[in-house]
Amino acid sequence: MPVLIDIRPVVQILGWLSCSVALALLVPALADYGVGNPDWHAFIVASVLAGFLGVLSVAATRTRETARFDIRQAFLITIFGWIVVALLGAVPFLGLGIGFTDAVFESMSGITTTGSTVLVDLDALPPGILLWRALLQWFGGIGIIGIAIMLLPLLRVGGMQLFRIERPDSSEEKIYTPGKTIFFLMSIYAALTVACAILYAAFGMTAFDAVTHAMSTLSTGGYSTHDASFAHFGNPALHWVATLFMLAGAIPFFLYVKAVRGSVTALVTDQQVRGFLAFVVVASVVMAWWLTSQRDIGFYEALTLTAFNITSIVTTTGFASDDYTAWGPGAVGVFLVLMFVGGCSGSTSGAIKIYRIQILMQIVRAHIRRLTRPHRVIPLHFNGRLLPDDVPYSILAFLVVFVATIALFTVALALLGLDIVTAYSASVTAITNVGPGLGAIIGPAGTFEPLPDTAKWILTFAMLAGRLEVLALLVALDLEFWRN
Amino acid sequence: MPVLIDIRPVVQILGWLSCSVALALLVPALADYGVGNPDWHAFIVASVLAGFLGVLSVAATRTRETARFDIRQAFLITIFGWIVVALLGAVPFLGLGIGFTDAVFESMSGITTTGSTVLVDLDALPPGILLWRALLQWFGGIGIIGIAIMLLPLLRVGGMQLFRIERPDSSEEKIYTPGKTIFFLMSIYAALTVACAILYAAFGMTAFDAVTHAMSTLSTGGYSTHDASFAHFGNPALHWVATLFMLAGAIPFFLYVKAVRGSVTALVTDQQVRGFLAFVVVASVVMAWWLTSQRDIGFYEALTLTAFNITSIVTTTGFASDDYTAWGPGAVGVFLVLMFVGGCSGSTSGAIKIYRIQILMQIVRAHIRRLTRPHRVIPLHFNGRLLPDDVPYSILAFLVVFVATIALFTVALALLGLDIVTAYSASVTAITNVGPGLGAIIGPAGTFEPLPDTAKWILTFAMLAGRLEVLALLVALDLEFWRN
Repeated sequence: MPVLIDIRPVVQILGWLSCSVALALLVPALADYGVGNPDWHAFIVASVLAGFLGVLSVAATRTRETARFDIRQAFLITIFGWIVVALLGAVPFLGLGIGFTDAVFESMSGITTTGSTVLVDLDALPPGILLWRALLQWFGGIGIIGIAIMLLPLLRVGGMQLFRIERPDSSEEKIYTPGKTIFFLMSIYAALTVACAILYAAFGMTAFDAVTHAMSTLSTGGYSTHDASFAHFGNPALHWVATLFMLAGAIPFFLYVKAVRGSVTALVTDQQVRGFLAFVVVASVVMAWWLTSQRDIGFYEALTLTAFNITSIVTTTGFASDDYTAWGPGAVGVFLVLMFVGGCSGSTSGAIKIYRIQILMQIVRAHIRRLTRPHRVIPLHFNGRLLPDDVPYSILAFLVVFVATIALFTVALALLGLDIVTAYSASVTAITNVGPGLGAIIGPAGTFEPLPDTAKWILTFAMLAGRLEVLALLVALDLEFWRN
Repeated sequence: MPVLIDIRPVVQILGWLSCSVALALLVPALADYGVGNPDWHAFIVASVLAGFLGVLSVAATRTRETARFDIRQAFLITIFGWIVVALLGAVPFLGLGIGFTDAVFESMSGITTTGSTVLVDLDALPPGILLWRALLQWFGGIGIIGIAIMLLPLLRVGGMQLFRIERPDSSEEKIYTPGKTIFFLMSIYAALTVACAILYAAFGMTAFDAVTHAMSTLSTGGYSTHDASFAHFGNPALHWVATLFMLAGAIPFFLYVKAVRGSVTALVTDQQVRGFLAFVVVASVVMAWWLTSQRDIGFYEALTLTAFNITSIVTTTGFASDDYTAWGPGAVGVFLVLMFVGGCSGSTSGAIKIYRIQILMQIVRAHIRRLTRPHRVIPLHFNGRLLPDDVPYSILAFLVVFVATIALFTVALALLGLDIVTAYSASVTAITNVGPGLGAIIGPAGTFEPLPDTAKWILTFAMLAGRLEVLALLVALDLEFWRN
């Protein structure tokens, strides 16, 4: 007889998460109350609801023992954590008079740091709701960093066992306790956000824009307070500050912890960081050189455009400083490919990610060499160490599921009547957590508002799947998972 | 000091290949001469040229020793064999007054059994050139079967080491000598073609149409003698005959050899064949059921349409009995996905192929199960045997190179100014050797004629790359290949 998983510790953690959301909702409530906007009611209602559910869940599952989780419970917490926050976070959007579908889409897009939006006329919205969008992304960002560093490596999802925190001896173990690590991560994340906000303000943003944009920059989320996104801001310095901090958000956060603790070299010698920065620099320079041939602009102006928009897509942020799909023939093709790349593991970015691409390139090269010299042994390395045998399998599984999921959602969206470019790019942008798609409707100059409701639900699910590296979500669909 | 590869045996084989092309060119010459069409001159010129180059090459490299090849020479023969035949095969097309680019494109599309065409008004062309197109595909088909069975498994390209001809004991070795195997393969291929032609003629095709279409059916090539492709033929029985023989062309030919030698069960118990047929049947029935909701037609009529066109795309043939991209929302998405599937290994079809998909699904399932139960050992099987350790790596390398090549060619074509749907589907259809693309220009109702010359050269290269499973071509670009 199958024995079910004990879900009490799961419910308890989700209860605590609810309580945190309740507290977070007070921030935009205060902002709206401060400027005398009646919208603060919606936040208070949402806060009371979240708090009530949270306290109820915690109380109902309280035990005297310290909660301990096995792997399956950890999976459930990860999946339902995102769902619970997305649902609770949707409540304030209902106050805008939009439908339930749109509210959940916007909230899920926020908490997964995707940045696709169904809201139009952002510039006219009250500050509370704009702040809430930024907060969702900011919390989503730290959430994924925590899970990518603490949980996914243990679960060996898609090759992430590579990034298990190394504990070679007992002295190091003392330094990297989970509690301390989380504290360091949050402090660094917060410090980088503050630094970004200060620079934004210094180069001319209002305090409100500076704070909200800093939150959606570090989380590589991409929500803006303006319909025109970064094109709203004329000062090129602001675009460069954003480029810098989007890159900062896409670097493995554990390396920052190491850097603060003294090993600054780790940040510059890391194979993934080097590959990532080299890719962005080369792509930006080449495309800038090409752009000067398409438009009557100088190289520096072109580089400001390409560096910002390429960084935005590769880090899966989704800000736009221009409609890059109108840059001339090939631009759509280039950006479609760039959407797949992604930043580094253990960062706030999504998509395939640099380390997988680096390992895949090694495997391909080794395979090609072995074709003509079958008996040659070519060891695979990552960051100077031998690659464990199970990593290529994990990456293969990830890649297959990733591509198959995109194909599945593309067909589903096309069956709803979307043209193939919209269907395909919507599927890609949701699963990679980038944000904008391609084409007239959902491109960088459009929004997801015109899509049919069913399409929005599919994409809401796709954003969640993408944020959990797809595989983590598939586990729950496996019947064996539920057997003891 | 690097020692170069001895290319004399390579040139000799290419010389013999040239001589065969010279002989083959006499067939369409005879056909045109027979109907009094002056086009026979072009074939004679081409034949003399091919014969001259062939005899020259053979004579220049003759030795007393029996030629023996190492792996690198085998690679060179494979790659340049296709290039030599494509170039020689292009000469007769110049007689039509089309440019060199178009002639090479058409010839490469033929010999790689892709079936993309730059020729318009096929119905008005002389019989010789139509016969030559069919012959190119027919020879291309037997060529790829031979290489897929004799060569690629030894080279371990993309997991094909699975299909090395098993020689468990010396008695079997006597049965499966290369010479005998090739003879059996060619006889079976020819017999199936004759059977197909007889059935085509029996159900109403002219003898000429029956022969040419039989050749491009068994080779899963897709060249027709009519602009409307199979929509030209009204009798549904012809569509079902074509469906049957396209399937026959996409089944591992080595299984036919086994069947003829007595083990008929091998044909029905093979895991790949079962998966392939099940996929086509399920896809056709589901899509037929869906099509009846889109159009005012009965289920049988719908099934005739879906079975034919799905089989045509999945087997990478490329015949069309209707403009399936106009079947309603989602049809473009579905066919875009179907283009990737492919038939069985060791057949005339291209694309990813069923056995790779079956193994990938096993790897994904095993990976997901191991996520929650890390210490479980889940062995991978294929056709009842344990999967060798290097196969997943080979498949991973294949998949990465396959996807990356499609991305690269998509961007290149988009940079030439093609819209993204045309650029992407042209890249996919060339690398998978399917034939028609998607969209108004290169869709099933269009041709590749309007594309710019540079795009045609890119696609010519892409068709060759796809036919050689991409990896075999990449080997030659690896510098180490040329060192001893």
